[in-house]
Amino acid sequence: MAMTKVALAVTAHPDDAEIGMGGTLAAHAAAGWDVHIVVVSLPDQRERRLREAAAGAGVLGATAHILDRPGTWQVEDLPVYALVRELDTWVRDLRPQRVFTQWHGDAHNDHALVARAVGSALRHSPADLYLAEQANQYAASAAPFPVTTYVDVSEHFDVKLKAVACHDSQSAADTYTEHLRARARYHGERIGCAFAEAFSCMVERLEIPRPETP
Amino acid sequence: MAMTKVALAVTAHPDDAEIGMGGTLAAHAAAGWDVHIVVVSLPDQRERRLREAAAGAGVLGATAHILDRPGTWQVEDLPVYALVRELDTWVRDLRPQRVFTQWHGDAHNDHALVARAVGSALRHSPADLYLAEQANQYAASAAPFPVTTYVDVSEHFDVKLKAVACHDSQSAADTYTEHLRARARYHGERIGCAFAEAFSCMVERLEIPRPETP
Amino acid sequence: MAMTKVALAVTAHPDDAEIGMGGTLAAHAAAGWDVHIVVVSLPDQRERRLREAAAGAGVLGATAHILDRPGTWQVEDLPVYALVRELDTWVRDLRPQRVFTQWHGDAHNDHALVARAVGSALRHSPADLYLAEQANQYAASAAPFPVTTYVDVSEHFDVKLKAVACHDSQSAADTYTEHLRARARYHGERIGCAFAEAFSCMVERLEIPRPETP
Amino acid sequence: MAMTKVALAVTAHPDDAEIGMGGTLAAHAAAGWDVHIVVVSLPDQRERRLREAAAGAGVLGATAHILDRPGTWQVEDLPVYALVRELDTWVRDLRPQRVFTQWHGDAHNDHALVARAVGSALRHSPADLYLAEQANQYAASAAPFPVTTYVDVSEHFDVKLKAVACHDSQSAADTYTEHLRARARYHGERIGCAFAEAFSCMVERLEIPRPETP
Amino acid sequence: MAMTKVALAVTAHPDDAEIGMGGTLAAHAAAGWDVHIVVVSLPDQRERRLREAAAGAGVLGATAHILDRPGTWQVEDLPVYALVRELDTWVRDLRPQRVFTQWHGDAHNDHALVARAVGSALRHSPADLYLAEQANQYAASAAPFPVTTYVDVSEHFDVKLKAVACHDSQSAADTYTEHLRARARYHGERIGCAFAEAFSCMVERLEIPRPETP
Amino acid sequence: MAMTKVALAVTAHPDDAEIGMGGTLAAHAAAGWDVHIVVVSLPDQRERRLREAAAGAGVLGATAHILDRPGTWQVEDLPVYALVRELDTWVRDLRPQRVFTQWHGDAHNDHALVARAVGSALRHSPADLYLAEQANQYAASAAPFPVTTYVDVSEHFDVKLKAVACHDSQSAADTYTEHLRARARYHGERIGCAFAEAFSCMVERLEIPRPETP
Repeated sequence: MAMTKVALAVTAHPDDAEIGMGGTLAAHAAAGWDVHIVVVSLPDQRERRLREAAAGAGVLGATAHILDRPGTWQVEDLPVYALVRELDTWVRDLRPQRVFTQWHGDAHNDHALVARAVGSALRHSPADLYLAEQANQYAASAAPFPVTTYVDVSEHFDVKLKAVACHDSQSAADTYTEHLRARARYHGERIGCAFAEAFSCMVERLEIPRPETP
Repeated sequence: MAMTKVALAVTAHPDDAEIGMGGTLAAHAAAGWDVHIVVVSLPDQRERRLREAAAGAGVLGATAHILDRPGTWQVEDLPVYALVRELDTWVRDLRPQRVFTQWHGDAHNDHALVARAVGSALRHSPADLYLAEQANQYAASAAPFPVTTYVDVSEHFDVKLKAVACHDSQSAADTYTEHLRARARYHGERIGCAFAEAFSCMVERLEIPRPETP
Repeated sequence: MAMTKVALAVTAHPDDAEIGMGGTLAAHAAAGWDVHIVVVSLPDQRERRLREAAAGAGVLGATAHILDRPGTWQVEDLPVYALVRELDTWVRDLRPQRVFTQWHGDAHNDHALVARAVGSALRHSPADLYLAEQANQYAASAAPFPVTTYVDVSEHFDVKLKAVACHDSQSAADTYTEHLRARARYHGERIGCAFAEAFSCMVERLEIPRPETP
Repeated sequence: MAMTKVALAVTAHPDDAEIGMGGTLAAHAAAGWDVHIVVVSLPDQRERRLREAAAGAGVLGATAHILDRPGTWQVEDLPVYALVRELDTWVRDLRPQRVFTQWHGDAHNDHALVARAVGSALRHSPADLYLAEQANQYAASAAPFPVTTYVDVSEHFDVKLKAVACHDSQSAADTYTEHLRARARYHGERIGCAFAEAFSCMVERLEIPRPETP
Repeated sequence: MAMTKVALAVTAHPDDAEIGMGGTLAAHAAAGWDVHIVVVSLPDQRERRLREAAAGAGVLGATAHILDRPGTWQVEDLPVYALVRELDTWVRDLRPQRVFTQWHGDAHNDHALVARAVGSALRHSPADLYLAEQANQYAASAAPFPVTTYVDVSEHFDVKLKAVACHDSQSAADTYTEHLRARARYHGERIGCAFAEAFSCMVERLEIPRPETP
Repeated sequence: MAMTKVALAVTAHPDDAEIGMGGTLAAHAAAGWDVHIVVVSLPDQRERRLREAAAGAGVLGATAHILDRPGTWQVEDLPVYALVRELDTWVRDLRPQRVFTQWHGDAHNDHALVARAVGSALRHSPADLYLAEQANQYAASAAPFPVTTYVDVSEHFDVKLKAVACHDSQSAADTYTEHLRARARYHGERIGCAFAEAFSCMVERLEIPRPETP
């Protein structure tokens, strides 16, 4: 019987996962992983953005989840401890092997808060944790992003763009294509492939795969 | 037909690999990897230390290599560019998927030089690179060691100690046991296992293993 | 007449001081210092945790203080400026020479907020400030902890464990023994003693003790 | 027709701009720039501090602005996203080429929050961003301040002190003179002038001025 | 009479300036600056690489200089103090306002040594200093590159590629085109232009240009 | 019988100790410590600089030592391992409790090499280690200097200047007075005294002095 492996992405807003790690999530889904996206905040247009989140995740082969709260809200409207408590439940239920989230040095305060909360929520979990580079243009972030970990997303880059395009309430859906392509090409050049996404490893247990046998 | 996977350790002195990453190398060998140790410098007692290096590597299930130079020498006796040229050959011949070396922030200048040379030698290679924590007592190193990557070596810790003990020309062989145990327990506690070795990931391509099928 | 010297610990929760710096506080008390612990938040079980805090501090030879608020609360329920105002009072009244607190890079947001508040509260005070390493297992903190300062707690380690055990409302009281022992051994090995606690010095005025005369 | 150039300072409290970057703002005003100061919080004595802010800015040749809220408040009383929204308006209206603000590593939490908000508010703007060193005495801040950028304020240092003195509700107005002089001398020595202010460059587009022609 | 402004690039090898900062140097030349490139080492094919260096510099509108030594050599063949002494002469003679060099964290040891030497050679000079990002593929460098300073090279990118192509003894001349384009697009996206080069500011004196008058 | 306490300064050149830590060494001597200065390199004017080193140390109440080599030489003329071997002897013979040296991030390569060598030489020693801020003007060093540790040298600042003045072969002796005063005032302001020297703590064992009794 196959043991299901689980990848979990946690991001502040409905399109952050597609923009920051969409190719990586699609690659995990394509390899047979169970992929989940937890979106922490629904800042406006509740119904529309719920639909977009579900559609974007669907394109990637993932399942979208939103905090169970009525209306719309911002990450900062919850204290971090309340957010940690929510994430505790997902971590306990989904038991992910790998968690992807945003970067605590990101210039967007909501992204940084989510990063802190995810770090806390993994305090009893053996999951590996990778943080995604900030995707804003004109980024004036607080510190250089310390890339350690690349994911070759060459075969999943079109899927990523299609997933980003699901968020048509956001200007990002239209204008980010060129931006995301430039970024993925740059990181791809670093590891010798067409397109890559870049992460900063916070903690991982190095697996030692057995060489495949025929 | 099985594709052989290759792990390469590059260290300044004959017992550095055993002390800094012996459990990790043993774990790779046990999983069927082809494991090589390149020792850069043979600072004294040529014949004895050659024998010790071969013995230590053998205990780990690895093969030891030494630079092809007569007599004894220190890392600093070679310019870094000559060392890089030597390493280029090994990297080209062994084609490792994973490289383990020492840390450029290590207080021992030879360790730091080896780290720099290995970084250069991988400039055309798709190998992942992990740096090992400095193992000296009384360590007054230049910066905090940024652990990202842990290897569970619980099942290989006795083998590691046995490999360290092969270097009986070194006081380390006698007195490091307690030191290495305290260190591996500490890192093990961090990831929830008995013994672990800790590394700083410099660059890696994240593999996405398919869930195993029955 | 002896000038009393004062050490002040400020931590987020009732057992944090015992876990993070219990040996250090016990060593100061044993050397004749006046030792105080300010606990910022009482998150649950008010009466029980008040008793535990008093008991733990007592074992260390210290006095516990809690913010004067009814009921239970989290650090985040106060704005940092309100917390700074409270700490201002303690700093002014106790006039500590040394302050120990948590680390601003700690993955637990409450610990990081306390660190920030303490830094602010010392803006007019000549106290030295040391930050303690985070004690969680599975720690996925934001940056490597920059140890500068070690305290040999070999003679006070049993007292520390006894103080931690006073917090029997917390699972920590049961399961942290092995964890704390591995950590203190590791740091002890670094400076050549049995058990040590590790701190990051934020600011200190180096004292120049006169050699003792017979 | 001359193209007006605009410099914008954003700080937490009414005297922060004068203390941290007063010479720099005066130098920009003297060179013909349009200089604006946005003060985020009015923590007490509303009418008096409004007058002081206007007077201090006036001495520097700048215009002071305060958030349009009744009464007094602290930075933390607004969520960061609300602050970003306010700053968005000023950035859009003033269209600054250069923005000066406080440092995200400052020990004062309000200063750090303002730094974060300004970073976010520039996400669509091509403005250069420079962060000012923290001016508190007894500073126990979270990390070393990474100076990159110096401004020679030798000809504007008296104006700066005069502007600081406008804030006579603050003890700073009296006691900071010697402190600010020591700081500006130190930084001046670094670049070979009498007095300098020091900044950390977050992002800039390097201009390439044409050599002047007669 | 126009005051000539001088930009100086110092790099380890003949094609480093073109690859790392060619667009920036071309932009300075186009704006009327006097632009000089000092190449520290001539590692092989003396005559050919001298010609290539002259040609590459010529395309950028700059003048190439090489250390006055016979034959070929590596950076490491000189002690850093001898290199500093050589650079002292150029700095004294050329009196640059801006200096561009390589990054001390670059994985190539020669690049790092040049960075150190340039830092020393500016100890008595009021020049601003900017370090260029490492251009190797498969870069496993020692730390994240801390970009602060961008130069819009959109109008000079073709000239840069033409200058790189002058170094046809190097494979870089052929294969770097795509790599350099991906890199410059990525940095361009960050500041909202087509192509940019990225630098880390070590020290600068902020100029305050007067708004232009008609 | 009084236990003598020993402070050891190790610096690259004859006037570095006086400039970087002269007040601190004088303060230790005044408190009854045995103070030694090891100067690693004698770059020129052998007899004159030997006399200056002895004179400068004498003013501070310290003893100067120079490596036992004929003629003049630079730090880089020795491999680091040879320097470590020399320092091993001094550390073993003098058995210092406190070691002061230069900073590994200093822009002067010799200073950085000495820092590395001292770190290595303390690998078996329980000495505390503090690094001094770089004293060059126009400093374009590699990273911000992370001050942790201040020494109040108000009562020893005149002695420091007198010791610097002993090195009259160096222009520093004449022009550094104002520079050193600005620096010491700045650091003094940080801890609330007239003059201070600033250090970065690499490793220390925190002493817990007993309150004095009458």
